Amino acid sequence: MKVYVLRIGHRPERDKRITTHVGLTARAFGASGFILSPCDEKIIEKIKDVEKRWGKLLEMVDCTNSPISYIKKWKERGVVVHLTMYGININDVINNIKDISKDVLVIVGAEKVPREYYELADFNIAIGNQPHSEVAALAVFLDRLFEGRELEREPKNPQLKILPTPKGKRVISFEH
Amino acid sequence: MKVYVLRIGHRPERDKRITTHVGLTARAFGASGFILSPCDEKIIEKIKDVEKRWGKLLEMVDCTNSPISYIKKWKERGVVVHLTMYGININDVINNIKDISKDVLVIVGAEKVPREYYELADFNIAIGNQPHSEVAALAVFLDRLFEGRELEREPKNPQLKILPTPKGKRVISFEH
Repeated sequence: MKVYVLRIGHRPERDKRITTHVGLTARAFGASGFILSPCDEKIIEKIKDVEKRWGKLLEMVDCTNSPISYIKKWKERGVVVHLTMYGININDVINNIKDISKDVLVIVGAEKVPREYYELADFNIAIGNQPHSEVAALAVFLDRLFEGRELEREPKNPQLKILPTPKGKRVISFEH
Repeated sequence: MKVYVLRIGHRPERDKRITTHVGLTARAFGASGFILSPCDEKIIEKIKDVEKRWGKLLEMVDCTNSPISYIKKWKERGVVVHLTMYGININDVINNIKDISKDVLVIVGAEKVPREYYELADFNIAIGNQPHSEVAALAVFLDRLFEGRELEREPKNPQLKILPTPKGKRVISFEH
């Protein structure tokens, strides 16, 4: 199973940092792709720049201005999960999600998500039914799904790599 | 073991939304308290407002303009964990953290964290050694520590409560 993350409802003036955190969280927690809607070249560049410096973990970084068509087309190939505080608690469904053999598109909304997305999703899943953060929701969903193995991956061709250390900072720089 | 979250390096003009997400993530994922540094009344009010509407989960919401003194005083009573991409991978230390019987202060930084914090921390822990988000890091740390039980808690005296549902939104409103 591969997971792709679709961030919808992005507002370029307001959501720049949160959406960047969503994209980097997708990358760091095991997603294979990140799709942004609507398009915002600055965010796409930022994610690609992290891929260049820290190494390749994503197969695809893309954007769409037609998120509903994108999701409908996706449903021919895989399963759609929408993360929302109104959905079923992840504790009650994570095992069903782990059993899916198809690819999964995870929809992460901004503040107000139109009803149509709830209808299109195969699963509306709540990372708890309290208000918090789409970044937190995505991170915990992916960490549960991949059971922590996602944090052991080695990115391809990094320019920078951290050597984990109990105090301070140790970073190796590679010449390419 | 109780967990308190100290957000340091908050910049009121720049970090309003990210810091709010950190505070709400602390609340939703099982922390007992949230401490903000430096003080920013707007954020404190926002967190307290969520507690009022969605019910009480936090014992304490506070702020400090002397984070180093705050941490030094804390160390008389408990253990300090600093979340940083430069630290030891959580996969390698989470079991040691679960065995701690004292209370834990989790430090969550903004962009540049001064060296002193790395020295003061008993554990510098990386939620993976890739750049992502302090919100993601805090959420996954707490979810691993509390093993998902934090998402089953019932807040006290909520005005609003979600009834989890597979499609759409169901919310109960209580009169007080």
